[in-house]
Amino acid sequence: MYYPEPISKLIDSFMKLPGIGPKTAARLAFFVLTMKEDDVLSFAKSLVDAKRDLTYCSVCGHITDVDPCHICSDQTRDVSTICVVQDPKDVIAMEKMKDYHGLYHVLHGAISPMDGVGPEDINVASLINRLKDERVKELILATNPTIEGEATAMYISRLVKPSGIRTTRIAHGLPVGGDLEYADEVTLSKALEGRREI
Amino acid sequence: MYYPEPISKLIDSFMKLPGIGPKTAARLAFFVLTMKEDDVLSFAKSLVDAKRDLTYCSVCGHITDVDPCHICSDQTRDVSTICVVQDPKDVIAMEKMKDYHGLYHVLHGAISPMDGVGPEDINVASLINRLKDERVKELILATNPTIEGEATAMYISRLVKPSGIRTTRIAHGLPVGGDLEYADEVTLSKALEGRREI
Repeated sequence: MYYPEPISKLIDSFMKLPGIGPKTAARLAFFVLTMKEDDVLSFAKSLVDAKRDLTYCSVCGHITDVDPCHICSDQTRDVSTICVVQDPKDVIAMEKMKDYHGLYHVLHGAISPMDGVGPEDINVASLINRLKDERVKELILATNPTIEGEATAMYISRLVKPSGIRTTRIAHGLPVGGDLEYADEVTLSKALEGRREI
Repeated sequence: MYYPEPISKLIDSFMKLPGIGPKTAARLAFFVLTMKEDDVLSFAKSLVDAKRDLTYCSVCGHITDVDPCHICSDQTRDVSTICVVQDPKDVIAMEKMKDYHGLYHVLHGAISPMDGVGPEDINVASLINRLKDERVKELILATNPTIEGEATAMYISRLVKPSGIRTTRIAHGLPVGGDLEYADEVTLSKALEGRREI
């Protein structure tokens, strides 16, 4: 037993977090001991509160402390557009941009036969349900530009096509500030393919 | 407000930890939401317990949940040797080695006039007190091989010399598995200076 028990328990707790190995966990645990007691208590409280108070919005699947979430219940938002993303973090990224004023739908994953994730394992059924609302005119497929994300976008677009709702896919191309020289072939080919007149 | 309040509070809590910026904090906070409730509760408990139950040993200054600590109260340890280190983590490192069976003394810092840390700001007075015990024969100065650590070792050794107790300094040299080619000049010079017959 190298560590007194309370600290070895704390180290174990930190090690359960992603990307935190034994050395970082020990460093964080020792740091906690130097923190003010109030700060440690509020850290512990914020952990419990977050886990207890947060849930997924029954409409869009985004993470929220009220149901439906702030975005779904916001009367000023454009209900004609739904942006489909894989993860709650993607909603945050979109919201930070401040350019999008429609609604969201969080899939909580992407179709990946390799990992045994099929269409029924992600939040698609409730999306189809939402499309029965006649006010919805466009579905923006903003899944990740990966094989799984593309497959999911393709799957949803085929599913939705018959309903006559417009489905669009976010653009692939060179990231702003990127360098043509270092772009991979697929990105470059997508950028060329998606070229527009200026 | 991009994040629901409970999660933004949790992100703020994680950001108070060293080496954790906003992106990592968000990643950890979202991970907490996917953890089992029991795990989150035990994480919160381990934080509070560690802060509340751990204290510094009144004898050696090592971190402990009982006073005196397990090492100081261990009757099988060699009381004739005291190893002086800067930090509780250094005790852990020494204990992992399993080769040392004496006692420790944790200074909680090193003398650093640049940062306004003088001898009275570190745990030296209680060390001098411990040396009154006639069973103590050797003081191993294992402060870090930095300017501050060296200065602290030098200070303590001069302070202790008159008492006739043997003071030693841990060896400087090439780390095992290191490469002569990449060693810095000071380390190399110390390694040469400290050469021994084989």
